[in-house]
Amino acid sequence: MSIAIKGIGASSGIAIAKAFKLEHVELSIEKKQVTSAEQEVERFNQALATSKEELEVIRDKALVDLGEDKAAIFSAHLLVLSDPELIDVVKDKIKNENVNADFALDEVAQMFISMFESMDNEYMRERAADIRDVTKRVLNHLLGVTTVSLTSINEEVIIIAEDLTPSDTAQLNRQFVKGFATDIGGRTSHSAIMARSLEIPSVVGTKDITSKVDAGMMVIVDGIGGDVIINPTEEEITTYREKRDAHEAQKAEWEKLVKEATVSKDGQHVELAANIGTPNDLEGVTKNGAEGIGLYRTEFLYMGRDQLPTEDEQFEAYKAVVEGMEGKPVVIRTLDIGGDKELPYLQLPKELNPFLGFRAIRLCLEREDIFRPQLRALLRASAFGNLKIMFPMIATLEEYRQAKAILADEKEKLTSEGTKVSDDIEIGIMVEIPSTAVSADIFAKEVDFFSIGTNDLIQYTMAADRMNEQVSYLYQPYHPAILRLVKLVINAAHKEGKWVGMCGEMAGDPIAIPILLGLGLDEFSMSASSILPARSQISKLSKQEIEAVIEQLLQLSTADEVENYLKSNIL
Amino acid sequence: MSIAIKGIGASSGIAIAKAFKLEHVELSIEKKQVTSAEQEVERFNQALATSKEELEVIRDKALVDLGEDKAAIFSAHLLVLSDPELIDVVKDKIKNENVNADFALDEVAQMFISMFESMDNEYMRERAADIRDVTKRVLNHLLGVTTVSLTSINEEVIIIAEDLTPSDTAQLNRQFVKGFATDIGGRTSHSAIMARSLEIPSVVGTKDITSKVDAGMMVIVDGIGGDVIINPTEEEITTYREKRDAHEAQKAEWEKLVKEATVSKDGQHVELAANIGTPNDLEGVTKNGAEGIGLYRTEFLYMGRDQLPTEDEQFEAYKAVVEGMEGKPVVIRTLDIGGDKELPYLQLPKELNPFLGFRAIRLCLEREDIFRPQLRALLRASAFGNLKIMFPMIATLEEYRQAKAILADEKEKLTSEGTKVSDDIEIGIMVEIPSTAVSADIFAKEVDFFSIGTNDLIQYTMAADRMNEQVSYLYQPYHPAILRLVKLVINAAHKEGKWVGMCGEMAGDPIAIPILLGLGLDEFSMSASSILPARSQISKLSKQEIEAVIEQLLQLSTADEVENYLKSNIL
Repeated sequence: MSIAIKGIGASSGIAIAKAFKLEHVELSIEKKQVTSAEQEVERFNQALATSKEELEVIRDKALVDLGEDKAAIFSAHLLVLSDPELIDVVKDKIKNENVNADFALDEVAQMFISMFESMDNEYMRERAADIRDVTKRVLNHLLGVTTVSLTSINEEVIIIAEDLTPSDTAQLNRQFVKGFATDIGGRTSHSAIMARSLEIPSVVGTKDITSKVDAGMMVIVDGIGGDVIINPTEEEITTYREKRDAHEAQKAEWEKLVKEATVSKDGQHVELAANIGTPNDLEGVTKNGAEGIGLYRTEFLYMGRDQLPTEDEQFEAYKAVVEGMEGKPVVIRTLDIGGDKELPYLQLPKELNPFLGFRAIRLCLEREDIFRPQLRALLRASAFGNLKIMFPMIATLEEYRQAKAILADEKEKLTSEGTKVSDDIEIGIMVEIPSTAVSADIFAKEVDFFSIGTNDLIQYTMAADRMNEQVSYLYQPYHPAILRLVKLVINAAHKEGKWVGMCGEMAGDPIAIPILLGLGLDEFSMSASSILPARSQISKLSKQEIEAVIEQLLQLSTADEVENYLKSNIL
Repeated sequence: MSIAIKGIGASSGIAIAKAFKLEHVELSIEKKQVTSAEQEVERFNQALATSKEELEVIRDKALVDLGEDKAAIFSAHLLVLSDPELIDVVKDKIKNENVNADFALDEVAQMFISMFESMDNEYMRERAADIRDVTKRVLNHLLGVTTVSLTSINEEVIIIAEDLTPSDTAQLNRQFVKGFATDIGGRTSHSAIMARSLEIPSVVGTKDITSKVDAGMMVIVDGIGGDVIINPTEEEITTYREKRDAHEAQKAEWEKLVKEATVSKDGQHVELAANIGTPNDLEGVTKNGAEGIGLYRTEFLYMGRDQLPTEDEQFEAYKAVVEGMEGKPVVIRTLDIGGDKELPYLQLPKELNPFLGFRAIRLCLEREDIFRPQLRALLRASAFGNLKIMFPMIATLEEYRQAKAILADEKEKLTSEGTKVSDDIEIGIMVEIPSTAVSADIFAKEVDFFSIGTNDLIQYTMAADRMNEQVSYLYQPYHPAILRLVKLVINAAHKEGKWVGMCGEMAGDPIAIPILLGLGLDEFSMSASSILPARSQISKLSKQEIEAVIEQLLQLSTADEVENYLKSNIL
């Protein structure tokens, strides 16, 4: 009999194949006295060197397959391997105690791991996971343990694992790995994000899939519905094959819209743009027919390295994107670091509530040494295409005015130096803080555009950390308060003749798209992979019909009522 | 020549006296081999016992002078003294290494202190401060160091210190200690709160007052303006004496309003209520002529102990307050734990952003074992006076409905058991989450009243942790967005015939009071000590005049513009 398990659909699509169980081998480490500590240190050095080589290969592969930001994880792992606080302590231990390298490494690493884990701080716990991942690799070499290599898979499989580490995911071969399902993780967990990049159907957070599946069992992974079927019946296989074929037919249908404009059934045009993190993402943007870049997150330029990027490095990256987009609009957001995104080399103080802390524009206005080079790079790149500049986390008009003044100052300097700068750069702000949404009319007089950042706007408006599972039920995009704020922002902008985009996850959500269209949103910016489905959906919607019911919708009492209303009346 | 130093006025009033410098003696601890480890352990036990006795005296004094919540700090200190993780480890060290107790204690304590401090978590850093404070006390006894005792002060002084620990503040004698000034701290730091409880003029956060003042120097502390004058001239002394006399005359003037109602110049009545934490606060409430309790924070009942309070303990506390208020309204807020307020015995998971986390009603709805006994205690107490129940951190209508249903269920049970419960208990919610302010019209149909919690509402609306100094400039009560949200809430409530209170710091702020009056706020709940000044201020304001300019005010662009407008047009 088949067993159905519910999880979280992390990457859409349906896969049907045999299970490949990825099990982590428990290493047995014994304390031994060695006769030559020097030889033992040498053995340790060898294992380090081999591990480094492996990690370099993985990083380079990740760079090609997954882009710079994902590859940065492995640069961090490489840093662990040359961290004297870890490595030198291990060597000292070998020499002082005449013990075997694997024992010494395990002892020292465990100490760091429990220290970081006990810190009750998500960032530190991630560091613990990094150390664990890297240490395991070195220990395998020291103990001569050969691990099952994901690269060696040569038949179609679905991977079943407790979780996938970054190094696991980076090694997945799309030709053979048809899907995966894990015990832990959420839609925004590391492996889920990787799966979407690789377009591998996957379901995460099943809690106990590993205890229910044996290697070789037939498994269906439905990344659309978040379901896993173990030992499916013939009937189920047929049903899911049909679903898969329908999904793929639909994808083919969507493909035809790549070069089309986005127009509603009643002839209203809106712009569908993509969110990107690096110039490497441009390929996906073009492939999916984006009409522009609605959000270029510049953080990745600053991450996975040990110092700030230079003005020239930034200029090259921005120029590559604006040139690549061939005149289509590119909205580049200035640095949004802090909060959950840290830069170790800036040595920012740890905060009790980083999401309510010193981040983004708050940091940039204090640290002009960081802000000005980025603005100069943006201004220089503006000469090569249609570049717009956007400031994140604006909460007060003073912050916007101050940022704009610094930009004007750098523009003045560049022009007087004879550097070419575009004369009509639009300057806008993210609307992601409730105060800014509520006073959008005040801002609308001074900005060129708004982009509503729903991920943060929802989390602040509901006072619920979206990364915190215990309150994630409060992350409610359809809550009447959220929709009213979106409406407020759009109306305020239109009254002043300005345009409004949205670059949070909500912009690509099929349930939200009709409301947003009805509210008059001008630009929808989303993951590139959501663009074609959204274009298809909008072509079947009448903006006027939605407008007629929107007031009624905004008087509903709860997010559930809104969602039900939409499902039964519009979708 | 006199020197003027600017700090933060932490407790109002003016003091003029000689400086008393509180300096912490550096202890010198050497490692020594002892002949009898047993004797050394005995010496350690003695020092522990003496320290315990001292702390018990301090705690009992704090209970009388400062109330239960402040006294709880010393209960925490006493717990450290019997914590086996600390104490047993020290004893083991003495025995295993044959070392002196002071060395062993210092080593072990330092290890814990640096561990907690490195945790980059405010709660843990506070634990480090606790351990440091307690360890120092024990070390003093072990080393035979006699510290300057604050209780021995027998002439009028102003205390100058880097900071005051809880144990320092609890020992201040109001008769002789006329004021204090410290290098560090802010308006909400521990010593500042204590100073307001004790009504001792004080200035904190001067950065370097200790390096500028020698013992015996004449000092003026102006807790109203946040100024400290060192070596004042005769002229300055005269000026400040006049200021002090004026301040005291004004206080006498205010005293006359104790039994008056609060009525504006144009005859509009509003209610001035007090915020309290324990039944002990009732004395101040009566003394200051509050017309009710606008916020009874029930957290303190749960703090400084090692298990939940029973239903009966809670009932007694609530009954004491409603009876003490003799029929005047008492709004009791259900448990708001989590965020910056933790209960060690609940063992809640640590969160990355506790202010956006699992707290207050979110926790109570999950933990009915905690929530139901509190509701039963409240229902039982309702028979003894005018009790109203308020739920904190409501973000969605579902949460309110769920809380209300549990309350109805318990009421049903009590009634059928024959227990007397009031038949007309008003049930309201805190409006402190932006979503609730924005959808106040939806809530107004179902609640009996709102109380706007500005401390949290401002922090969420501005997305800025008010405890984080780097973004504290964003804590802007006069930001147009905040005022608009307040207006929205008041209008929505009045449309449904419901009343609106405010129980954040803003309600007692002389700059905000005129706007709030103009916006139609019905109840202002504040520290008891702010009530008489507020009553006096309101008696001089015309509500109608303010109403006439309020629309104009709400169109201003920034918090500064609002503040300036108010200062020049209304105040």
